[in-house]
Amino acid sequence: MIDHLILSNDNKIIFLILDGLGDIPDPAHSHRTPLEAANKPNIDSLAVERGVLGRTIPVGVGITPGSGPGHLSLFGYDPEEYEIGRGILEVLGLNMEIRAGDVTARGNFCTVRDNVITDRRAGRIETELGQELCARLASAIPTIDNVEVLIKPGVSHRFGIVFHGEGLSDEIEDADPHKDGRPFVLPAPKNPQAKRTASVIGSFMKKALEVLKGEPKANGILLRGFSKRPDIPLFPEKYRMESLAITTYPMYRGIAKLLGMKVEKEPRDYGESVSILRDHYGKYQFFFMHIKETDVAGEDGNFEAKVEAIEGVDKIVPDIYALKPKVLVITGDHSTPCALKGHSWHPVPFLIVADTGERDGIAFHEKNCVRGSGGTIYAKELMTLAMAYGLKLDKFGA
Amino acid sequence: MIDHLILSNDNKIIFLILDGLGDIPDPAHSHRTPLEAANKPNIDSLAVERGVLGRTIPVGVGITPGSGPGHLSLFGYDPEEYEIGRGILEVLGLNMEIRAGDVTARGNFCTVRDNVITDRRAGRIETELGQELCARLASAIPTIDNVEVLIKPGVSHRFGIVFHGEGLSDEIEDADPHKDGRPFVLPAPKNPQAKRTASVIGSFMKKALEVLKGEPKANGILLRGFSKRPDIPLFPEKYRMESLAITTYPMYRGIAKLLGMKVEKEPRDYGESVSILRDHYGKYQFFFMHIKETDVAGEDGNFEAKVEAIEGVDKIVPDIYALKPKVLVITGDHSTPCALKGHSWHPVPFLIVADTGERDGIAFHEKNCVRGSGGTIYAKELMTLAMAYGLKLDKFGA
Repeated sequence: MIDHLILSNDNKIIFLILDGLGDIPDPAHSHRTPLEAANKPNIDSLAVERGVLGRTIPVGVGITPGSGPGHLSLFGYDPEEYEIGRGILEVLGLNMEIRAGDVTARGNFCTVRDNVITDRRAGRIETELGQELCARLASAIPTIDNVEVLIKPGVSHRFGIVFHGEGLSDEIEDADPHKDGRPFVLPAPKNPQAKRTASVIGSFMKKALEVLKGEPKANGILLRGFSKRPDIPLFPEKYRMESLAITTYPMYRGIAKLLGMKVEKEPRDYGESVSILRDHYGKYQFFFMHIKETDVAGEDGNFEAKVEAIEGVDKIVPDIYALKPKVLVITGDHSTPCALKGHSWHPVPFLIVADTGERDGIAFHEKNCVRGSGGTIYAKELMTLAMAYGLKLDKFGA
Repeated sequence: MIDHLILSNDNKIIFLILDGLGDIPDPAHSHRTPLEAANKPNIDSLAVERGVLGRTIPVGVGITPGSGPGHLSLFGYDPEEYEIGRGILEVLGLNMEIRAGDVTARGNFCTVRDNVITDRRAGRIETELGQELCARLASAIPTIDNVEVLIKPGVSHRFGIVFHGEGLSDEIEDADPHKDGRPFVLPAPKNPQAKRTASVIGSFMKKALEVLKGEPKANGILLRGFSKRPDIPLFPEKYRMESLAITTYPMYRGIAKLLGMKVEKEPRDYGESVSILRDHYGKYQFFFMHIKETDVAGEDGNFEAKVEAIEGVDKIVPDIYALKPKVLVITGDHSTPCALKGHSWHPVPFLIVADTGERDGIAFHEKNCVRGSGGTIYAKELMTLAMAYGLKLDKFGA
């Protein structure tokens, strides 16, 4: 829709994304949400002075998004049209490089006895052992049938794997019985075109069994979530904005890279995030700043930690806004209510700070966002709205 | 969308449907709606303590739904994709059995003079006469060209009819001129495949003329709304919930049956509805409780009766909630404003009572629902939302 309307100008848009920001009222905290309970004078003064409030639905009414769809929507992609596979997310999370055509997967070390998986997590082996075993696999099986194999350890029994070669397909069933006590399985092709890839990966898995033979627990591997880099329009081209991602967590750096954003070095704290923003402010028009702590607190069910994370972000907001972006958007990619200890379907509050907006004149939290003039929109529409407030969209039709 | 996300668990969802619940402010009642004017302490205390308010649009903005689309939407079916024909509704309303492939229709006795319909309603004959004439037709023409004919009287000149046989089609024009003073018509096929069915039904109508020849008023029949049982996914399979319908009116029992819900015996009053719910609570996960009185009051333009019906329902709500459903939804299938004495397009207020929600903290009525955190959604999205609050949906995407 907006492709032909985009005006290229140097107006700056900053997306300050507090992962899992949205929450629900907590009876133990006077029925307030963390965002409502947090002392955030800087954000609220922007909200009151020049804020437009609203809520986003990440994917659909009642639908709880994973991190992939949550971020794709925020960046204006239809999460039902584009999908980032689980393998891709895993290897991105491990900072591995992916090239076009590579097939990726999530891996587990597991315990195999008489061809039966007795423990899909190999007794949750130490991370150090996982690292050692990954190194052993990498040196023993660097390639298989002309396909290059790249493997990188994660935490405990987990690893990411990338198969690099000609004509590979990701149309492959999980090589994972998904439950203990079932037989060890090799990958099955979903269609004839995937036959060769499934056979190559199957050979790799059989060789891995030999390499790991002597291990008491981690004597086999499982692979799942086979996926390729999605064929997705690049963000800087789609919106005609040079774009910079500033994020502390590898997975979000990975998603940003996938969309063609520039990714700066990993900041150690919020202060350094702002320094990076300031140092590169002139060269870019769009900035994606990702804060993970709100989501972690939500997943832990830790109301106080979520409040603290929000208050921490509030302290850097004056430095961010001092750069005078045309548009500052503060929101999340989904809700992670402390009471539910996980992602949820609840609409996500957003605040758009701009001098081209409706100015709702109220503080930023879930309850006020229900009655904000931004309304309740699909997350995939938020980029268009931000572009509009940034005066980056031409008129539609004569 | 949600098909692959559904988690099967024993969390209970109750839909308490007050037919035609929504209304508009009445100048004669201090500009309050019946739902606003009703004294309903039980519903409102649930609303305040753990309620999420919002509104549904049954079909589309400005579109007034019939009972079929109203209920299909509530149950999460797209009312523009699935259609329950008028014939089907009529015969379901008469509690007739329909088998796959049957063609159904609504029937009228009418007056025919010199091949012209002089009265499409046969002078609104007594119900008893209609019953007698249906019995006469049934015994005179039990089958025609190997097609079984089932006929059941309704009120006055109305009856339902089912044609049961091989290879029947419902692609047939109404055998009804729709206005008095026009010629008697036989059914015309809409396409060549429907030719045989149209001819069979035409033969039946001609035989009926002979059987009814001596009648002073009801000497002919009209048939319209030819329709088959729609090819529609069954509710219990779609949502992976064993489902029970508790309704006093035949038509709603019919819709429930069509969707594959179990239907318990017809309750005589609200109290018995609750007893049925309680007696079968363990075996099911989803309960559809239908209350007709609100709609009847709306159709009659009787504000006080609608208030009374709502207050009557309020009295059984504590017994319903005492069963501790994970989610209790109180809403309507459409609005039936007293001022309009009929179904209307006005969005329908809903209340979701759950411990996983936003807790709006306000009483349940149309005006508060405008500002509820459930927002204004399409009715077909309400089931997804209820499933979400019931923790019955997995995450979408990695």
